[in-house]
Amino acid sequence: MALRAGDHSQVAMNGLKEKVLTLDTMNPCVRRVEYAVRGPIVLRALELEQELRQGVKKPFTEVIRANIGDAQAMGQKPITFLRQVLALCVHPDLLNSPNFPEDAKRKAERILQACGGHSLGAYSVSSGIQLIREDVASYIERRDGGIPADPNNIYLSTGASDAILTVLKLLVAGEGPTRTGVLIPIPQYPLYSAALAELNAVQVDYYLDEERAWALDVAELRRALCQARDHCCPRALCIINPGNPTGQVQARECIEAVIRFAFEERLFLMADEVYQDNVYAEGSQFHSFKKVLTEMGPPYATQQELASFHSVSKGYMGECGFRGGYVEVVNLDAAVQQQMQKLLSVRLCPPVPGQVLLSMVVSPPAPSDPSFAQFQAERQAVLAELAAKAKLTEQVFNEAPGIRCNPVQGAMYSFPRVQLPPRAVQRAQELGLAPDMFFCMRLLEETGICVVPGSGFGQREGTYHFRMTILPPMEKLRPLLEKLSQFHAKFTREYS
Amino acid sequence: MALRAGDHSQVAMNGLKEKVLTLDTMNPCVRRVEYAVRGPIVLRALELEQELRQGVKKPFTEVIRANIGDAQAMGQKPITFLRQVLALCVHPDLLNSPNFPEDAKRKAERILQACGGHSLGAYSVSSGIQLIREDVASYIERRDGGIPADPNNIYLSTGASDAILTVLKLLVAGEGPTRTGVLIPIPQYPLYSAALAELNAVQVDYYLDEERAWALDVAELRRALCQARDHCCPRALCIINPGNPTGQVQARECIEAVIRFAFEERLFLMADEVYQDNVYAEGSQFHSFKKVLTEMGPPYATQQELASFHSVSKGYMGECGFRGGYVEVVNLDAAVQQQMQKLLSVRLCPPVPGQVLLSMVVSPPAPSDPSFAQFQAERQAVLAELAAKAKLTEQVFNEAPGIRCNPVQGAMYSFPRVQLPPRAVQRAQELGLAPDMFFCMRLLEETGICVVPGSGFGQREGTYHFRMTILPPMEKLRPLLEKLSQFHAKFTREYS
Repeated sequence: MALRAGDHSQVAMNGLKEKVLTLDTMNPCVRRVEYAVRGPIVLRALELEQELRQGVKKPFTEVIRANIGDAQAMGQKPITFLRQVLALCVHPDLLNSPNFPEDAKRKAERILQACGGHSLGAYSVSSGIQLIREDVASYIERRDGGIPADPNNIYLSTGASDAILTVLKLLVAGEGPTRTGVLIPIPQYPLYSAALAELNAVQVDYYLDEERAWALDVAELRRALCQARDHCCPRALCIINPGNPTGQVQARECIEAVIRFAFEERLFLMADEVYQDNVYAEGSQFHSFKKVLTEMGPPYATQQELASFHSVSKGYMGECGFRGGYVEVVNLDAAVQQQMQKLLSVRLCPPVPGQVLLSMVVSPPAPSDPSFAQFQAERQAVLAELAAKAKLTEQVFNEAPGIRCNPVQGAMYSFPRVQLPPRAVQRAQELGLAPDMFFCMRLLEETGICVVPGSGFGQREGTYHFRMTILPPMEKLRPLLEKLSQFHAKFTREYS
Repeated sequence: MALRAGDHSQVAMNGLKEKVLTLDTMNPCVRRVEYAVRGPIVLRALELEQELRQGVKKPFTEVIRANIGDAQAMGQKPITFLRQVLALCVHPDLLNSPNFPEDAKRKAERILQACGGHSLGAYSVSSGIQLIREDVASYIERRDGGIPADPNNIYLSTGASDAILTVLKLLVAGEGPTRTGVLIPIPQYPLYSAALAELNAVQVDYYLDEERAWALDVAELRRALCQARDHCCPRALCIINPGNPTGQVQARECIEAVIRFAFEERLFLMADEVYQDNVYAEGSQFHSFKKVLTEMGPPYATQQELASFHSVSKGYMGECGFRGGYVEVVNLDAAVQQQMQKLLSVRLCPPVPGQVLLSMVVSPPAPSDPSFAQFQAERQAVLAELAAKAKLTEQVFNEAPGIRCNPVQGAMYSFPRVQLPPRAVQRAQELGLAPDMFFCMRLLEETGICVVPGSGFGQREGTYHFRMTILPPMEKLRPLLEKLSQFHAKFTREYS
C-alpha cells in the first residue's frame, strides 16, 4: 500500500494516520450546538441510575428525572382510546376482537383505508396522510371558532421539533451581515438555539420580563431587532406560547401587538404552540396566533406569514415516543411551499404511528361514541392533576427563602429563580461551570433530583434559574419540592 | 402603523408587501435539492389516481406505483410476529389475551421493561433504547461470523435516511476549494445528492460500470477523486450495496479494494447496506463492510472510519411507515462520537415503534419459539417471491428490443437501459424535459405505470434508463413488464 506524501495522508509519529473526522475537521456548526435538556446533567443522571442498580450507596434511592417534559416516563398512563385505535391499526386481526369498542374499530378502519396497502407499514405521502391532514384542519377550525384551515397548508411531522427545523431551514440564507437572524425568547427552549447553530443562522435574543410573569414586551422585541440589524438580517420571530421553560400564557392583546410588530418589521412568525392544551391558571386562555391574525383582518390576515406547530408529545396525551406533530403554514408564498414539499419528500414520510395518534388527538370520540365517557374522564384527570401540580409547585417554591417562582400558567415547567451566594458563584467559576450548573449538579448528586440549569435556556446576566417539570406524580411532587427547597437552603448556608 | 422606508419594508405597486420568504430570499441550498423518487412524475401519478376516482376515462384502470421501494403499498403482508409484538407493546392490556403467542408476549414485556414508564409513549434516550442497541449488536455479530459489535457504537434512527443525513452533517465543512466533497455512485439513490445539496457539500460522482453489471471499479474511484481534488476536499466515500437503483451485489474482493482505496486516500466510508437481506442471484452473497474491514486486519481494522446503515423499511419486512433504522460507526474519533450524540439529542429520539420493529428484525424468533415456524415461512415466502420477480424482470426486459437490463442480483429495483429514438430526444428537449422523463411521463399517461427516469439517479451522458421496483405482486408483474415493453416499442415506432 503506497502512502502518499502531502496533506492527504498525514501519518502521526506513532504510525497511525490521523482520523478523517476529528473535532478540528468536523462541521464547525455542529460543534457549536448545545442542548441542555439532554446535556451533561442528564448523562450524569444516567450514570447515577446505573450506580444505584449496581448497589452503590447514595444519599437517595432513585433518580427523579424532572429535566424533560416526558409525562409517561413519570408514570402518566396513556389515554386508552388512543392506544386501542393504534393497536387495531398495527395488528388489524384485532378488528375481530370483542374487546375493542366499536368507535375505536371504526377509527382504525378509516385510517387503514387511507394507508397505502391498507397498512401502517407503507410510506405515507411526505406531507402526511391526506385524511389526517383533513382531520387536523377540522380540529384547527373548531379550536379557532370556525376560522377555516386548509388541509393543504398542514404538514405532518416527526414531532414538532422536526417541523420547526424544516421551517428554519427554509429561512436560512446569506453570509456575514446578510445572514438570517431569528428572534427567540430568552429564556428559550434550546431546540431553537441548537437549530440556529446547526444552520449557521444568527440567534437574536429578546428577553421575557420575569418581573411581569415572563411577559413579552414589544419594546424589548424592538430593541433586540434594532441591535441585530447591525450584524445580520433578522427575518423570523419565534414565540413559544404557552411558554417553555417559563410557563406563561400570552394575553390576546400581547399576541396582537406581536403580530403588528412582525408585520411592520417584515418578520416571518413561528408560533410554537405545542402546549395549547396545557393551560391551568384561572383567567388564562390559549389564543392561537392563526386565530388572532385572522381576526385582525387585512393586511395581517391576508399577508402576514406564519407557521404554527403542534405535537402529540405534550397536552394530556404525552405520547413523546411516537414522534407525531404538525405545522400549519399561513400566507406562505406558493413557490416556497412547493420547495418545502420537496424538502420533506427527501425524508420520505413522518412515522405513520405518530400520524395515527395525531389523528386521534384532533378527532377524539364524540359525545355519542361509546368511548367518549372514558376518554373524557382520562383526559380531564390528567389535566386536572397537572393544574394542581402547577399550583403546588409555585406555592412550595415561593415559601422557600431565596427561591422565587412565577405562576405556572401553562405548559409543563416551572422556571424558578434561585439566589446563589457569591462564594458558590466563585466556586463554580473555579470549576469552569455556570453557577446554576454547579447548583444543579450538586442537587443531583445529593438528592437524585435532575433539573436543568437556567443557563441552558438563557437568562439575564447575574440571575440563576433551573427548569423543573411539574410531571412527577402528585405523591412524589410535594416531597420533591420540599427536598429541593431544603437543599437550596443548605447549599446557601454552605457557601455563606 | 408606520411603514418604514428602505429595504425592510418593500411595498409593491398593488399595496401588498413582498413576502419575507420567497424563492429569491429562501435558503439557496434547499432550492438546489432534487429528489426524483417523489418528484413531478409521482405528483402526476397522484393526480391521475384522483381523476380515475372521479370517473375520468383513461387508457388504464389503475396507477401502478413502481417508483418507490414500498413493499406493503404493493400488497406485501406484514410479518405477523412483528405486528403482534408491536400491538402488545402499544396496548399492554393485550398481554392478558390468549390470542397472542407466548414468545411475542415475552418479547413485548422485555421491551416495555426497557422503556421509560414501561411505555412506548416515553422518549427513549437519543441513541435508542439500550436493550435494542444490544440486540442490534448481537445481530451484527451473528451476521459477521462472530466479529464483535459494540452497542455503544450503534445509534438507532428514524429510518436509514435520517442516520445517513446525520453522518453527512458531521462531515461537512470548509468553503470554496476546501468544501467537503463526498463520492457517490452514479447511478445513485437521490437521498445522497439531495442531502449534499442541502448541506452545501460537493457531490463527487463515480460511475458504476453498466457493461459489467454495474460493477464498482477502483480506477474509476481514483479518476473521480483526482478530478475532485481540484475544486473541493473529498472526505467521504458512499457505497450502496446491494445497489440502489442498480441491484448489483458487490464481490468481496471489490469491497476489499474499496477499503484499501479509502484508507490510502483518507476517505470516511459510508456503507448503505439497507438491502442486506435482499440478495437473490445465485453466487451472490452479502458481505458487510464491517466484516471485510475487520478481517483485513490492521491498519484497516483498527483505523479505517466506517458508518454502516440498515433499516426496517426493506428486507423481507418492508415496514417503511415506521421509520426504523440504525447506523453502526467503526473507528470513529471519540470526541466526534460525543458530538454526534449531542446532535442526536436535539431531535430527542427516534420513533419508538420503529425501534421495537428493529428489535424484532434483529432478534427474530428462535427455532425453539412457538412463533418460529410461521415467522420463517412468512419470511421465506417474501424473499422467494422477490427472487422470482427479480429474475422475471430481467428476463422479460431483455426479450424486448431496445431495452437492456442487468441482472437484479439484489435490492428491489431493476434499472434497465432504454434506447430512445433521436426524434424523441429532440421532442423532449423542445419540451424542456430530460428524454427519459419524457418517456416515463408518456408511459404513465398511457399505461398508468409509474417508474422513475434514470436522470433522477444519474447516468452516463447520452444513455437513458428508468428505475422500476420488482415489488408489484407476481400476477401483476408479468403483464406490467410486457405492457411496458410494448409501450417502448410503440414509442420507438412513433418517433422513428
